[in-house]
Amino acid sequence: MPRLRLALAQTNPIVGDLGGNSAEIVAAVRRARDAGADLVAFGEMALSGYPIEDLAGRPSFLAACRRRARGLAKELDEAGLGDVVVVVGHPDGPFEPRRFTTSNAPTAIAQNVASVMQNGEIKARYAKHHLPNYSVFDEYRIFIAGDELLVLRMRGVDVALIICEDLWQDGGPVNRVASADAGLLLVINASPYERDKNEVRLPLVTRRARENDTMVAYVNIVGGQDDLLFDGDSVVVDRTGAIVARAPQFVPHLLVVDIDPEAATLTDLPENVARIELALPATGSESGDLKPLAADIAVVPDELEQVWNALVLGLGDYVRKNGFGSVILGLSGGIDSAVCAVLAADAIGAKKVFGVSMPSKWSSGHSRSDADDLAERVGLDFSTQAIATLVDPIEEQLKLDGVAAENLQARIRGIILMGLSNQSGHLVLTTGNKSELAVGYSTIYGDSVGGFAPLKDVPKMLVWELARWRNSFAARRGETPRIPENSISKPPSAELRPDQTDQDSLPEYDVLDALLEQYINGGLGRDELVEYGFDAAVVDRIIGLVDHSEWKRRQSAIGTKISRTAFGRDRRLPITYHPTDI
Amino acid sequence: MPRLRLALAQTNPIVGDLGGNSAEIVAAVRRARDAGADLVAFGEMALSGYPIEDLAGRPSFLAACRRRARGLAKELDEAGLGDVVVVVGHPDGPFEPRRFTTSNAPTAIAQNVASVMQNGEIKARYAKHHLPNYSVFDEYRIFIAGDELLVLRMRGVDVALIICEDLWQDGGPVNRVASADAGLLLVINASPYERDKNEVRLPLVTRRARENDTMVAYVNIVGGQDDLLFDGDSVVVDRTGAIVARAPQFVPHLLVVDIDPEAATLTDLPENVARIELALPATGSESGDLKPLAADIAVVPDELEQVWNALVLGLGDYVRKNGFGSVILGLSGGIDSAVCAVLAADAIGAKKVFGVSMPSKWSSGHSRSDADDLAERVGLDFSTQAIATLVDPIEEQLKLDGVAAENLQARIRGIILMGLSNQSGHLVLTTGNKSELAVGYSTIYGDSVGGFAPLKDVPKMLVWELARWRNSFAARRGETPRIPENSISKPPSAELRPDQTDQDSLPEYDVLDALLEQYINGGLGRDELVEYGFDAAVVDRIIGLVDHSEWKRRQSAIGTKISRTAFGRDRRLPITYHPTDI
Repeated sequence: MPRLRLALAQTNPIVGDLGGNSAEIVAAVRRARDAGADLVAFGEMALSGYPIEDLAGRPSFLAACRRRARGLAKELDEAGLGDVVVVVGHPDGPFEPRRFTTSNAPTAIAQNVASVMQNGEIKARYAKHHLPNYSVFDEYRIFIAGDELLVLRMRGVDVALIICEDLWQDGGPVNRVASADAGLLLVINASPYERDKNEVRLPLVTRRARENDTMVAYVNIVGGQDDLLFDGDSVVVDRTGAIVARAPQFVPHLLVVDIDPEAATLTDLPENVARIELALPATGSESGDLKPLAADIAVVPDELEQVWNALVLGLGDYVRKNGFGSVILGLSGGIDSAVCAVLAADAIGAKKVFGVSMPSKWSSGHSRSDADDLAERVGLDFSTQAIATLVDPIEEQLKLDGVAAENLQARIRGIILMGLSNQSGHLVLTTGNKSELAVGYSTIYGDSVGGFAPLKDVPKMLVWELARWRNSFAARRGETPRIPENSISKPPSAELRPDQTDQDSLPEYDVLDALLEQYINGGLGRDELVEYGFDAAVVDRIIGLVDHSEWKRRQSAIGTKISRTAFGRDRRLPITYHPTDI
Repeated sequence: MPRLRLALAQTNPIVGDLGGNSAEIVAAVRRARDAGADLVAFGEMALSGYPIEDLAGRPSFLAACRRRARGLAKELDEAGLGDVVVVVGHPDGPFEPRRFTTSNAPTAIAQNVASVMQNGEIKARYAKHHLPNYSVFDEYRIFIAGDELLVLRMRGVDVALIICEDLWQDGGPVNRVASADAGLLLVINASPYERDKNEVRLPLVTRRARENDTMVAYVNIVGGQDDLLFDGDSVVVDRTGAIVARAPQFVPHLLVVDIDPEAATLTDLPENVARIELALPATGSESGDLKPLAADIAVVPDELEQVWNALVLGLGDYVRKNGFGSVILGLSGGIDSAVCAVLAADAIGAKKVFGVSMPSKWSSGHSRSDADDLAERVGLDFSTQAIATLVDPIEEQLKLDGVAAENLQARIRGIILMGLSNQSGHLVLTTGNKSELAVGYSTIYGDSVGGFAPLKDVPKMLVWELARWRNSFAARRGETPRIPENSISKPPSAELRPDQTDQDSLPEYDVLDALLEQYINGGLGRDELVEYGFDAAVVDRIIGLVDHSEWKRRQSAIGTKISRTAFGRDRRLPITYHPTDI
């Protein structure tokens, strides 16, 4: 059997940064070449970043992507890396709109492609066939579908090339892989992390290997892009679906592996399959002269560690990619702000995290001492800005009381954080969790202020789980647990009036989180929720809060998505609507 | 030739309010029946409102729509209106997802249909074929396409039925109308207003009439739905494309007209065409006994009046449909807040508009006197809240200066408006215009605070034009011009520091607006803009501001869309991106 040394380059691109992403690609190809690789594959849109959304409708952007792809092929050659076969994903265009329309409406002018580069040229190009158009994906809106499978014949092996969703959907290219008798199916991906994605992604790769009787190499990008988080987890499986190599999650990685796929035997091409021949230099990998590679099979951590790492990477990349040097957040002594502070410290270092305690006349003693304790444990910058003397004159001048007065306190805190942010350039973190956001249990322009909400997709019960996990993780490593026990154990409170607790206004969080899961992620209607076992009055109240607070969510800060349905951009509902049996 | 009395019911539905919309439909059918109509057609999604976005993915919502459609047919019959043929648009489902997918991703389970009701039953159903997936439309994402043209044979006339985009796209049902030899093409629509839409919509209707040698009846919904505004403008044209009847824009209307379409002659059905026979009672309209109808052909007002009416309706419907009784806004004495106040007074009445002057130590004398003058002219509630004593303690405690101190003033104003809103239930209006929003010339959580931004899609130059138009409109009617001349003529200023004007930071507004039009609506890239004639340095600076401020726009309030590309929901760009030749 022929032998190929394959490298899967799990890079962390920045959307639109063609120059920077390109330089990363050249560096990775150099490392792969130094490791003896014949073929290096990068993720979907590794050159441009993903998702590019409506940038795909700008002819000048597409032309720049095409120029950069050609330039990259030349640069690789000039850098002495021309004999390596390099597969890179990028947007291509502008093409003629896919259909005639009598309106002046914009239609798709781009394709989502994988370019195959060698010897200074783009030798072939595969255009994605299945364009996902659900959940966070808008590809059918912005791309023109391809309709041909591409096979690369190199060193006697047929390597079939597809992109991401093409692997998931039956029909289309993936069904031609078997008829093309490919030895290796190479899939380049931009597949976002979700909590239970591992339960479907790897089994799918395994199944496709068995269905097509072929090895499968699956390469994914890594890193945070707004609320999406790509986890890497690139993998190679053999014809039986057994894992041959696997990259770690949440970090850039170059996965290099020797594979011995079935030799190509097919002479006639099936319909809708294009094939090109690529000459590879005779190298050690073929003859076996090269030093054998150590097995590189990353172990997948347990789920809470995965979620923690996802949140850390999402937060860190948002800060870095947007050019911030530090973050600032309010520390209330409560669990949400404590977890946000530790996530931030893990992401960018405690010295770049600025915590501000903003006690009011209603703040408890423990709200200050717990915040102080946290700051000490984590080692972050800590300061105090009392708000009573700032709130009182406004409350008196405007004659505010009740909820209006409660909100005023939260808004003064928002003003303080934004003022310090504008003065010193910190990014403001919003500390609210998914359960709060869902029911609108927050003050618009108050605690909802901020550029990034690390917990926007983390329900309250999971916030507590993560806090306990992070503390025991520290303990296992002989470090001080980061989060004060009191912040975990005390009843949650907004402390906007005396003796207030969240449960004055909301059901117990275990009930609330379960109900939100079924209503929002599960899609159950009112009657189905009652049938499921939730109290009818609670269902009616929570549905009302969720639908009523939708307009607030649209204004809420971005944060890392870790579940199928986060609040914000992947949930599209009218702002104005009168729910009927929804 | 057979004669039909046709009624096009231009109603203003509320999304999700199946009960309320249904009652409107029954009332309109009753009025149509009283006027002798044989056939009454409502707009696309008139039963559910449009757009329903991801509500289309909720099985319980779809089931409720289907139940309500069946219930509506029964109610019409029970109300003695059963012999009228009624065509109503609504979502239908849930259906099996349109394709198998190995992921758990949601796929479309709904159709966008027109139900044909008579004698207590739904006699037939047409499912929309072309599902627009560009600009504000997400239909391909949420609906399953139909593939059959429906023809209703009534009183010897073949009436072909299609929905909205089916008229715009070549291919599909509209190409079968000629072969089906229909006497009347009935199109039900939810077609949003755009400034230049009249230049394409009516010519399209005319062209389809000529192409198919058939009369065309085009019925559109009316009213504001979040940032979309449906303008009605329902129309009937004869086989030559000449207008036979036309409803006014921006108001609900029942357009009743006698038509004499070609009699049906076709016996064999073309492929992909379904036909049903509907018995109509012999009425006066057939024999000519009914009193002839007065011609009902509305005159389209000039463009500035159209835009003004669109903004008034969009604002008024947002307030009403969201259950607010009043609005509050800051009055700076400048042009933007003055125009917003007059729009609000025109929309909901001056007595429900609360204007607040919030002078700082940098406010000019005219900022107070011009605001006062405006309030007097319009007759709105006017109060003053000085901010200096509220700003100073915060500025001192936080040691803010420069832009941070400027922003603080804007944020205190935001807090005042939100406090008064929470205390009294007013909706806060954001007064910023499209040019400001585009370049981020505003303070996040400051003057950007609010639930609805009437001018979010109105560039600054157009704000001035509208102000002059509204004043001359008043003068023509012998009323006091609403907007103080000084607010129109003085140089715009944020007044956040001494002697500040907008042009300290921005190019002249005529240049800025022209550049934004070409960059955002026109899609020109950097080099193309320079080639177009803009100064290269100005282009670079403005592109930087637009792309940098994208994240602010995502947080900006909703407002009525009047152009092809507004800021906000119809413009999807990554928040984090590094522009390259875009």
